[in-house]
Amino acid sequence: MKTLFENITVITMDNDAGVIKNGCAAVDGNKIKYVGTTKPEGEFDRVINGENKALIPGLINAHTHTAMTLLRGYADDMNLQDWLYNKIFPFEDKMTPEDVRRGSEIAIDEMLAGGTTCFSDMYFFQAETGRAAIQKGIRAVLSDCVNFDGYERKVKLMEEMAEEFSGSDLITFTFSPHAIYTCSFELLEKCAAYAKEHNMPIHTHLAETRTEFSDCEIEHNMTPTAYMESAGLFENPTIAAHCVVMTDSDLEILKKHNVSVAHNPISNLKLASGIAPVPKMLDMGINVALGTDGASSNNSLDMFEEIKAAALIHKGAGLDPTAVPAETALKMATINGAKALGFDNLGMIKEGYLADLVVVDLDTPHLRPIYDPISSLVYSAKCGDVEYTMVNGNIVYER
Amino acid sequence: MKTLFENITVITMDNDAGVIKNGCAAVDGNKIKYVGTTKPEGEFDRVINGENKALIPGLINAHTHTAMTLLRGYADDMNLQDWLYNKIFPFEDKMTPEDVRRGSEIAIDEMLAGGTTCFSDMYFFQAETGRAAIQKGIRAVLSDCVNFDGYERKVKLMEEMAEEFSGSDLITFTFSPHAIYTCSFELLEKCAAYAKEHNMPIHTHLAETRTEFSDCEIEHNMTPTAYMESAGLFENPTIAAHCVVMTDSDLEILKKHNVSVAHNPISNLKLASGIAPVPKMLDMGINVALGTDGASSNNSLDMFEEIKAAALIHKGAGLDPTAVPAETALKMATINGAKALGFDNLGMIKEGYLADLVVVDLDTPHLRPIYDPISSLVYSAKCGDVEYTMVNGNIVYER
Repeated sequence: MKTLFENITVITMDNDAGVIKNGCAAVDGNKIKYVGTTKPEGEFDRVINGENKALIPGLINAHTHTAMTLLRGYADDMNLQDWLYNKIFPFEDKMTPEDVRRGSEIAIDEMLAGGTTCFSDMYFFQAETGRAAIQKGIRAVLSDCVNFDGYERKVKLMEEMAEEFSGSDLITFTFSPHAIYTCSFELLEKCAAYAKEHNMPIHTHLAETRTEFSDCEIEHNMTPTAYMESAGLFENPTIAAHCVVMTDSDLEILKKHNVSVAHNPISNLKLASGIAPVPKMLDMGINVALGTDGASSNNSLDMFEEIKAAALIHKGAGLDPTAVPAETALKMATINGAKALGFDNLGMIKEGYLADLVVVDLDTPHLRPIYDPISSLVYSAKCGDVEYTMVNGNIVYER
Repeated sequence: MKTLFENITVITMDNDAGVIKNGCAAVDGNKIKYVGTTKPEGEFDRVINGENKALIPGLINAHTHTAMTLLRGYADDMNLQDWLYNKIFPFEDKMTPEDVRRGSEIAIDEMLAGGTTCFSDMYFFQAETGRAAIQKGIRAVLSDCVNFDGYERKVKLMEEMAEEFSGSDLITFTFSPHAIYTCSFELLEKCAAYAKEHNMPIHTHLAETRTEFSDCEIEHNMTPTAYMESAGLFENPTIAAHCVVMTDSDLEILKKHNVSVAHNPISNLKLASGIAPVPKMLDMGINVALGTDGASSNNSLDMFEEIKAAALIHKGAGLDPTAVPAETALKMATINGAKALGFDNLGMIKEGYLADLVVVDLDTPHLRPIYDPISSLVYSAKCGDVEYTMVNGNIVYER
């Protein structure tokens, strides 16, 4: 399958290429074959006229729990412990594999319609999520989450998934100890060793709340970040979700080990976890990706919303209008997400990269006028402006 | 014109009626004639089947500068002084009445498509905005903004507008001294007296930034709020936009005079003004409405975004997940906005109220499932879900 996007504003997210007005991008199979200003030679199965449209790299949701769409709006505006122990956990206890499949399907429909082409999931019955991803054609990074009692069973599930999905281009894996408060130190060490042996990145929750931070200090006389480091987790490539409550030395630890942060600004606001020190992370050169978290704490899987929130919240919280400028926020949702998830050929529109691409319709009142397409995409565009979503060379959503 | 909405989830925002599932609402002329569970008798010119849809009061944008759509994305991520003096003011100096007309048209198209049925504007060449509002059929509350040198001229313009629009149901007025830093004390007093004499509400900017606050303390040995009070402005019904930097006594002043606050959470974040003490205002019983501010500091006129931001930001900033619950946020954008703008028959779906109504399509992945329709509208719905927008009994937008 060969596809040509022509006469389109190409937001490459490649520092060398920048924004190409009246550009072209050609896709052959699952790869981008050409990006530039002249129309490439050859026959195409499909040509998309990009007048008044932008082509952006597919958005990457670096931290979510897709099946939690089933809990979207089930409980809001509650204290965290009450919410978790009286609402979320009892609901999840009853969830079946079929529920996870249905919840994942809803999530994937929502994500594809909103320009998300890849998500990093952490939940249970993940094989169902993988099957839904393949059926709908979205790229997924899966992990059947490990907690207190689940190590052997989860390793088995991960190995079964590796086998089942070995023929798919779309599925890769991380290994996921849930968090320091749901795993013993020995379990964290086992996860670190397993991930190392199997060459898998770690995906975990880290320093999400003040409670987690202070409990860890009391129990272990260490910050959550230092504690995770001491368990050897960060000797693997790691995606640490949240990182809200961080000391300066914690940030140094992330930097030293090249840990990627999955920043979830909307979930952190909604659950009153607080505001992660993202401007400091960026100044230190820490790779910050972006996630929606589950739909129960957001309540959307809308990366356009998340990008705008990331660009806004640090300005207001730090009283600095130059914090997290538009392009930085868009990088978090594209190239930084790709890096976090271990891809070296995703997140930019560049020859040889995977063809995960999104066409955004700019011909709408709320995008008028356009001075700077990146500003328009970050501060004014909405998920409903997505016209086509392509994953791995296939158009899997058309508005 | 008689319209019937049937088999629809009616979010009345009326405490007595609450949410009516499988409800009906009938409109005759510009008024709501019936709300309930049984289908009313009689003939209708148009019947809208509301299956999988919600009917909400039209959203009210209590503070904006519509023509600033022309500056949407013109300058972002800059320090405030640099932004204002090197970008915004030089641009505005060149704006013609035709520009204001065009900018207002874009804004109104965006607002109607996003379920906003009424806006409170403060800008210049407001007659053009009024003409655009009448042409497009949106309700507008206008004020040609007064600053240092403009009093006599602005009074004349306001009087000309009052005459020109006297036959329109859609246009009302406020009187707008721009802010304490652009008006002398004597000018503020004159505005207060004029508004009182002509029975007009005041619409002004108040305590938006730390600079405004500290300059006022240095210059007048008073807070901006106390200073405005001393000029007599609050002896009129007043909409005070922003109110970010407020002492407890300032809030007492607002409460004492029944001043309404137009909260603009996204603009306050983007310009790094900070986060207004809204939970405190609500605890004190101050009427808090919601605004987008101009598109240059947002960069949207999307009340769904603003409602979600209002519900999220105070949870995260105050570390309280129960702050500004969903229904409160939706009230800010409906009934509280109506009160702020001086309407006693707007902002709820109730017999005898003005027929400003919005149909929201709930049949979309990002709104699945629905446990509580108000939570779904606040945390998950998007402006693109608006299917019909009715103002004053007329359907003026259909998706």
